[in-house]
Amino acid sequence: MLSEFLLAEMNRLGVQDALPLHRQLYEAMRRAMLDGKLAAGERLPSSRDLAQDLGLSRNTVVAAINQLGVEGYLVSRVGSGTYVNDNVPQINSARRARGGLRTLPTLAPARLSRRGEALAGSFCASELEVQPFTPGIADFSAFPLALWQRLQNKHWRMTYPDMLDYATAGGYAPLRRAIADYLRVFRSVQLDADQVIVTSGTQQSLELCARLLADHGDTVWVEDPAYWGAVKAFMATGLHLHPVPVDEQGIRPGASDDAHPPRLIYVTPSHQYPTGSVMSLPRRHQLLQTARTHNAWVLEDDYDSEYRFSGPPISSLEGLDTDGRVLYMGTFSKVLYPGIKLGYLVVPKSLVESFRQAHYDLNRPGQMPLQAALAEFIEMGHFSSALRRARQGYAERRQLLLESLRPLLGDADGPFISGADQGLHLCLRLPAGTDDRALAQRIGQQGLTVRPVSAYCLQRQDLRGLVIGYGYAPLAEIARCGRLLTDTVIRAGASR
Amino acid sequence: MLSEFLLAEMNRLGVQDALPLHRQLYEAMRRAMLDGKLAAGERLPSSRDLAQDLGLSRNTVVAAINQLGVEGYLVSRVGSGTYVNDNVPQINSARRARGGLRTLPTLAPARLSRRGEALAGSFCASELEVQPFTPGIADFSAFPLALWQRLQNKHWRMTYPDMLDYATAGGYAPLRRAIADYLRVFRSVQLDADQVIVTSGTQQSLELCARLLADHGDTVWVEDPAYWGAVKAFMATGLHLHPVPVDEQGIRPGASDDAHPPRLIYVTPSHQYPTGSVMSLPRRHQLLQTARTHNAWVLEDDYDSEYRFSGPPISSLEGLDTDGRVLYMGTFSKVLYPGIKLGYLVVPKSLVESFRQAHYDLNRPGQMPLQAALAEFIEMGHFSSALRRARQGYAERRQLLLESLRPLLGDADGPFISGADQGLHLCLRLPAGTDDRALAQRIGQQGLTVRPVSAYCLQRQDLRGLVIGYGYAPLAEIARCGRLLTDTVIRAGASR
Repeated sequence: MLSEFLLAEMNRLGVQDALPLHRQLYEAMRRAMLDGKLAAGERLPSSRDLAQDLGLSRNTVVAAINQLGVEGYLVSRVGSGTYVNDNVPQINSARRARGGLRTLPTLAPARLSRRGEALAGSFCASELEVQPFTPGIADFSAFPLALWQRLQNKHWRMTYPDMLDYATAGGYAPLRRAIADYLRVFRSVQLDADQVIVTSGTQQSLELCARLLADHGDTVWVEDPAYWGAVKAFMATGLHLHPVPVDEQGIRPGASDDAHPPRLIYVTPSHQYPTGSVMSLPRRHQLLQTARTHNAWVLEDDYDSEYRFSGPPISSLEGLDTDGRVLYMGTFSKVLYPGIKLGYLVVPKSLVESFRQAHYDLNRPGQMPLQAALAEFIEMGHFSSALRRARQGYAERRQLLLESLRPLLGDADGPFISGADQGLHLCLRLPAGTDDRALAQRIGQQGLTVRPVSAYCLQRQDLRGLVIGYGYAPLAEIARCGRLLTDTVIRAGASR
Repeated sequence: MLSEFLLAEMNRLGVQDALPLHRQLYEAMRRAMLDGKLAAGERLPSSRDLAQDLGLSRNTVVAAINQLGVEGYLVSRVGSGTYVNDNVPQINSARRARGGLRTLPTLAPARLSRRGEALAGSFCASELEVQPFTPGIADFSAFPLALWQRLQNKHWRMTYPDMLDYATAGGYAPLRRAIADYLRVFRSVQLDADQVIVTSGTQQSLELCARLLADHGDTVWVEDPAYWGAVKAFMATGLHLHPVPVDEQGIRPGASDDAHPPRLIYVTPSHQYPTGSVMSLPRRHQLLQTARTHNAWVLEDDYDSEYRFSGPPISSLEGLDTDGRVLYMGTFSKVLYPGIKLGYLVVPKSLVESFRQAHYDLNRPGQMPLQAALAEFIEMGHFSSALRRARQGYAERRQLLLESLRPLLGDADGPFISGADQGLHLCLRLPAGTDDRALAQRIGQQGLTVRPVSAYCLQRQDLRGLVIGYGYAPLAEIARCGRLLTDTVIRAGASR
């Protein structure tokens, strides 16, 4: 019976979806037609009869029938009643032939694209948990929240539409100015404000560079081991990745690499991810020379440049570049607060218009109140003072962590520490035979998240170690957590 | 003389950049070395002498020299003084050979990549100005700002780190639930909350689909004329675009199109952009059948579904799909407020994990306070009531605009209006011989922004008209602006 089917169906929908009655009835009737309970050309009971059978108000029934009429499932013939439309059976019969709607197996293309398979494959990210020592997570407890809320509220109040104009392509102008001022003073980056493109973060900056400066199949040199976010961005944009080994002075291309001429070279010179090497000045000059030889663009990801614990920072590659071949990028979300999902990209003058336009077209403007609030936050000096405060806190944690790791060190062939001069993680390097993935897992069982260095290696087999972040671990906890880690490494026999 | 060069350089820097004195001196000395004024191996004057020559405090000079030492430009030899490092001349001589730093022409690769050229090329966006009738801009004056600020402040206060966990992949869980509830009730979309992926808007949704479901060189069917944002997204992801003509019932693929089998089919069924056609129910069923024949995915961009001015909405393609081949997308930034740069993508169950993971890896989490505030905003019913209020305001504007355009209509071969039943723009269709680009420009000179339909045509030559948005034009102005537009069209002789 139709009404029984409808009631059962409505009951199911009502429990499951909390829809209003007329929508429940609409859905139930639609299913009745699709399932063939109501065939094409069949006449519907009158709305009065249906209402009575179903125990519903007539208004409810009429609303459902009207909706189905608008959508073409039903047609009314004056003086004769309401009928199931002729276009319904097509679907119906096709479906019945396969055994009815409910049991129909999915017919969709089951597979992802080849690049989709590659992109959706796990590359550490699924392991991310926010625990002491998780690299890439900082301590945001000192963020001046009340001040930020005040600024944000102010800019959400401001008139909006102007902010959507093409004039805002590349980002809100005052924010671009504030970023330029900051980089000029603190990072020796040579730039005008119009060279700054505000992005949603490093991923977007990298993709923009990859798309505008390289074609599908072009080669990008990446550090080995590498930051996986960059690897993903280059995979997503169809580039061919050529891994170049990193040593304690940073990336070191050799003759065999020159056989794979790059269109792009991607580096993290301030604090190589994950080994932590700081690229030396001679190496910086060499890299620029190599880039010149290949006429390649250099993508300088200057993450962690904000935190240097011994001496003033080394000049950025951008500051050394005289060719206009370096694109410089940074982010606020990892430094300031993750809710501020904004980053920046500094492009050479020759590229400004192309980048502004493509960025505008590909991403559309938006989040201008956030950009405006951040501009004022930086201009008022809160960004640099937040960095200063944070630096002190991180220096203390770093010290405590280093002390707690000391029992592991000292043996000439044993573990040593790299990358502790700068940034928010260090690397505990382990002998080549160590199973660092198993070790990281054992440490994970203690409630601490560290990452195995080998998980970042693209080609090379010689690096083993643990990437340990001290940005997020609470100060009061860090010594205890460090000892726990040290004990676990010793018990695993990985300390020699 | 060295000190004269340094003083001149510092003077230039001081005026231009407002750097502290020690940074000015640092920059000036660096340039002196790069320009060859200070050669490799050369001994520096003592800091005392330099300070005296330059009229600076000795601390300032020492700070600059220390920085250059850290960066490897200078080396100190105990008891002997400070020297320019040997690694400097390499750059130096290379540069002098080309005629010195300042006059050096840029050596960077001058060209964008081929796809970069295509992406940076203008496709209407540069014309965007926020004026009455600009399509794609809505009226945000009724947005409940105080309430929003309260919610936003509340969620910015909440503890943060948990929000960065992989559990938030695909978006903040309460927001995914709120979106699912909304779509189930208002758009007959059949879904569980875990099928929702929160994106930064339609561009990101489209790119994610293109990347995960299609490979470089695969074919995507797009409507002709087409929404240029989608065209750019598919270009950026390396797809081959095959345009399929649109009529008053929406996309109409024919036999010639079947010769270009699609991997993806992209449509705007609720309000085709730019013609405004609403895809009829039979056409929806046909499209799903065509997609099944080709085993293609369907990307349903349901923009403008929120505003229908006559009768209840037609069921979404997603609601009609029984194969699990439709991906459904919408946005908040154009509906609610552009500062809320968030959109959503509903994926079939079989794709949930792949999409969550790839989205997480490619975009990294962030803007969680925004997502949390929006979730509460929707749950509390403010989204649907904001839509209800807005719908009334837009209906009035639409009515006034239609009345002001009436003098243009009536001639059987003359202009007519399409796409006014739904959404926030309509299309004034003009005779095939009209130069609609010139006409749009003339109207632009009156301070009104409209878009020529031909600018959206990919292949076909038969469509002429003006895309007129009534979302943003102030109610009090719209009749006057409409008359101005009507007069301009008549004076241009385009009305017949």
